[in-house]
Amino acid sequence: MKSAFRQTYRQVLRWGNPTVEASLNENTKKVIQDYTGIPALEVTLPTFLPGEKEVKVEKEINLLPSYVKTFTEIVGAENIGTSDFERAQHSAGKNYGELVSLRKGIVHYPPDIIVSPNDHQQLEKIIQKCQEWKLTVIPHGLRSSMSKNIGFNNGGIAIDINKHLNKVVSIDEESLTVTAQAGISGPELENYLNKRGYTCGHFPQSFEFSTLGGWVSSNGVGLGSTGYGTIKDIVLGLKVVTPTGTYSNEIYPKTSQGYDVMSLFIGAEGTLGVISEVTISIRKYEQKHSKSTSIIFKNFEDGCLAMRNCIQGGFGKPHFFRLSDSEETEIDFRINGYNGSFSDRAIKTLGYKTNERCIMHVSVDGDEDYTSFVINKIKSVSAQSGGRNLGNKFAKKWLETRFSSAYMRDPLMDLGLITDILETSVTWKDLGQLWKSVKTYIKAKPNTICMANISHVYENGVNLYFSVITPTDKVSPREDYEHFHKGFIGTILKNKGALSHHYGIGRALAPWLKNKIGDQSYHLMESIKKEIDPNNIMNPGSLFIQ
Amino acid sequence: MKSAFRQTYRQVLRWGNPTVEASLNENTKKVIQDYTGIPALEVTLPTFLPGEKEVKVEKEINLLPSYVKTFTEIVGAENIGTSDFERAQHSAGKNYGELVSLRKGIVHYPPDIIVSPNDHQQLEKIIQKCQEWKLTVIPHGLRSSMSKNIGFNNGGIAIDINKHLNKVVSIDEESLTVTAQAGISGPELENYLNKRGYTCGHFPQSFEFSTLGGWVSSNGVGLGSTGYGTIKDIVLGLKVVTPTGTYSNEIYPKTSQGYDVMSLFIGAEGTLGVISEVTISIRKYEQKHSKSTSIIFKNFEDGCLAMRNCIQGGFGKPHFFRLSDSEETEIDFRINGYNGSFSDRAIKTLGYKTNERCIMHVSVDGDEDYTSFVINKIKSVSAQSGGRNLGNKFAKKWLETRFSSAYMRDPLMDLGLITDILETSVTWKDLGQLWKSVKTYIKAKPNTICMANISHVYENGVNLYFSVITPTDKVSPREDYEHFHKGFIGTILKNKGALSHHYGIGRALAPWLKNKIGDQSYHLMESIKKEIDPNNIMNPGSLFIQ
Repeated sequence: MKSAFRQTYRQVLRWGNPTVEASLNENTKKVIQDYTGIPALEVTLPTFLPGEKEVKVEKEINLLPSYVKTFTEIVGAENIGTSDFERAQHSAGKNYGELVSLRKGIVHYPPDIIVSPNDHQQLEKIIQKCQEWKLTVIPHGLRSSMSKNIGFNNGGIAIDINKHLNKVVSIDEESLTVTAQAGISGPELENYLNKRGYTCGHFPQSFEFSTLGGWVSSNGVGLGSTGYGTIKDIVLGLKVVTPTGTYSNEIYPKTSQGYDVMSLFIGAEGTLGVISEVTISIRKYEQKHSKSTSIIFKNFEDGCLAMRNCIQGGFGKPHFFRLSDSEETEIDFRINGYNGSFSDRAIKTLGYKTNERCIMHVSVDGDEDYTSFVINKIKSVSAQSGGRNLGNKFAKKWLETRFSSAYMRDPLMDLGLITDILETSVTWKDLGQLWKSVKTYIKAKPNTICMANISHVYENGVNLYFSVITPTDKVSPREDYEHFHKGFIGTILKNKGALSHHYGIGRALAPWLKNKIGDQSYHLMESIKKEIDPNNIMNPGSLFIQ
Repeated sequence: MKSAFRQTYRQVLRWGNPTVEASLNENTKKVIQDYTGIPALEVTLPTFLPGEKEVKVEKEINLLPSYVKTFTEIVGAENIGTSDFERAQHSAGKNYGELVSLRKGIVHYPPDIIVSPNDHQQLEKIIQKCQEWKLTVIPHGLRSSMSKNIGFNNGGIAIDINKHLNKVVSIDEESLTVTAQAGISGPELENYLNKRGYTCGHFPQSFEFSTLGGWVSSNGVGLGSTGYGTIKDIVLGLKVVTPTGTYSNEIYPKTSQGYDVMSLFIGAEGTLGVISEVTISIRKYEQKHSKSTSIIFKNFEDGCLAMRNCIQGGFGKPHFFRLSDSEETEIDFRINGYNGSFSDRAIKTLGYKTNERCIMHVSVDGDEDYTSFVINKIKSVSAQSGGRNLGNKFAKKWLETRFSSAYMRDPLMDLGLITDILETSVTWKDLGQLWKSVKTYIKAKPNTICMANISHVYENGVNLYFSVITPTDKVSPREDYEHFHKGFIGTILKNKGALSHHYGIGRALAPWLKNKIGDQSYHLMESIKKEIDPNNIMNPGSLFIQ
């Protein structure tokens, strides 16, 4: 198939709607310039690796015609994708390295074809055939994964679950559960629920470009996990098609029926099977009852202490709970034009100094009285650590734009900047040391921005999220990045951080997994993989090094 | 070893302290008489199968002397148990069938010997030897299990983890975690935590006679699970000794590091290995802030609706939350001398009729303002379903005596009564039908008490707990019980109840497991078992039928 209009690498790699170009506002440009030393952002620079060429996949489709014929018989010709553009689209997620390759016009790991089943039965037939033919399969949602979770080293088929397997199957308004096909996108599911007065409560930053099945596969965590829990906390049922059969379970609030093998599919990243259907717990939701506020602290330590006292305070929980470190706070203030304002000058005189102060955003959902109760408690506990309430203006803005920072990546990369992101969970006890060590490591690189925030908060610890923006070495950008990135991960691990809190392992972190979880657990993972997928056809290369 | 004093079957089977005899008070005797038609409870009946004989284990110790020598070298002679009494003690838990056998003076499934390791390293050595010799091993906590989780068909060794592996290893008061050896008992752990202002939040009815390792092995649920979560919700780390090596993990609040194989040990009931150490999340706790109340409803349906509206109301959660059906309510009132009181007559005139009304108990832990807030919300939501607040007298009494009803079993069995207990989780949608069907089934048996309550409450459903007291067929008590019991389970399963919410599977429910979870999941469980325990030495017969 050849499309009538020009389909570029940029359309493949771009975050969000392929036809809309994101851009940096003037404040952001000024910040980037000041921190990274890139000169004259005001004038249009030649874009670094713009990826504006038409997509051309070098690797030929290497699939027996009889295979293609069989798949076509199962799903219909309109559900078989073979174009270069589609193959490039299904070759990668949104990892920095993947984006760089696409910008260079290289499609490293394309599938042979894309197959989009119309229903569960077709999916089962496809997987049976792949098992028979020992053909690589990778389930695809909306490909916003950050950990190189996709990649066909030696071809194979991409199963697109989003195209058709995207419907709500049933809702149980008495038991507060919804069952949907795994390919339903975040907004589709949430709109369905909102109309009926419910929420799924799962809002990863990739919400717009992620699927229910993807959430489960990556063991994902939404920004509201403090109150709503992680996907693991809310999954009640799965239907999963594997090379050795279909697994499913009945829906109960809790059970003790032996060890729970169904939970193995959570976080399996497509290495065990294709998730076809998911049942999750939902919550009642009325937006008008939600309350939010922002609180400023004199430094990160004070903010952390307040957060910990809140989450361990035994007075209920906020849903969204976030604390930016001083660098993120200042950049945020500058981008939003807050610095120099009357209120900025006022709080400075009270000791909330530039480059030291830290902002916390908090939002509570639920019953009207509860949201007031919890917000007031948080204000009063925060005040004990010197927190000063700023009202809900900042928090509202953050909530409205919480999915949009991902859009900034493309224009930043256009400037020849590395935009690296790592996240790690850590206990409260080890939080301070981890934060300091990683900051020190990153800031040792000249002209580098390192914004950190606590993005997810639990009784026992937090997730720390680091966003790094730093100039690319234009001569050997890849080596430069890889060396820096390895040190980044190494510093996290040395300071008792998890390998991942919610991005998952993929191919990007697979080299570290065995050492992190230990030989014994790693070996058991491999054995389970072998049991369910004896021919290693399911997403080979993810989790386990090939 | 032969003990100097008389050691009877009764001491083995008795709930609680072996030297203290529980007895029924006059009110209880009268209730039993009225419902079951057993005559003249006032006069002392000859006790039915009292089990007062001295324990004599028929099965000889059938272990090579060289094995015993090796174990003795590892743990010391004082930590090897070989007496008939010890072997009988370690032959069974507290399942009704097990108790009947012991009352008859039959020790069906004794271990050859009991081995009590002093530390983790000794435990590893023991398991290595058992693996080498293909010797059956069953880890023992305090043996209060209800599902025949213990039983040596062909001898083997009982590993007593309670004797020495019962210490707190460390506490992290910043991250709110505690690490303890698996053999620590509920009260030991809770006392340690209470002294420092914390609680473990896990209070199964067997609390006094259960261990941390047992909670994990059985995938247990405490009575406060509505607020504190189940054991699965609070376990952060495990150290498990298996025939193929020791598994452990680092402590994080949450991670996405591939599929979580460590969670397989939760609910494995000793079939995969011996849990040696556990890290759980703890909570701050000040008893003086806890608040409780009881609310009476006109019928079970009204009470269920109020409960559902409370737990789904988005205003926080109580910790303990319980609703008795009308039969349990009436029996409870009669036993506690409430019936006929002034306040009883008063609420009757308001339409809360005998044999229809249902009592709810609720208790909230946490911050002082929060406990008031949630209790008031529950009162007001309950009022909308006709619930009338009775104050905290009943709830306090229930909380004080919540571990004591298990003590009533022995004197009830002395009267020749079957005391059968089943529990099942079910969604809110299927709750009504399940309750009605099971009640109908049980009440079809003449002279039978069936008390039901909702003992654990979640957004998506509840646990229903049925206690049955019914006269034994004294001619063929076992056949009579088994026939009735099978129908009991069958009725639960037919009406969409889980096989177990928190008792686990053991040998008692193993025959139903495969059909319940499906061939595919069952087969995967078997494969995992084979991988970790290739010689099937770990608690054979539990979960999987031999």
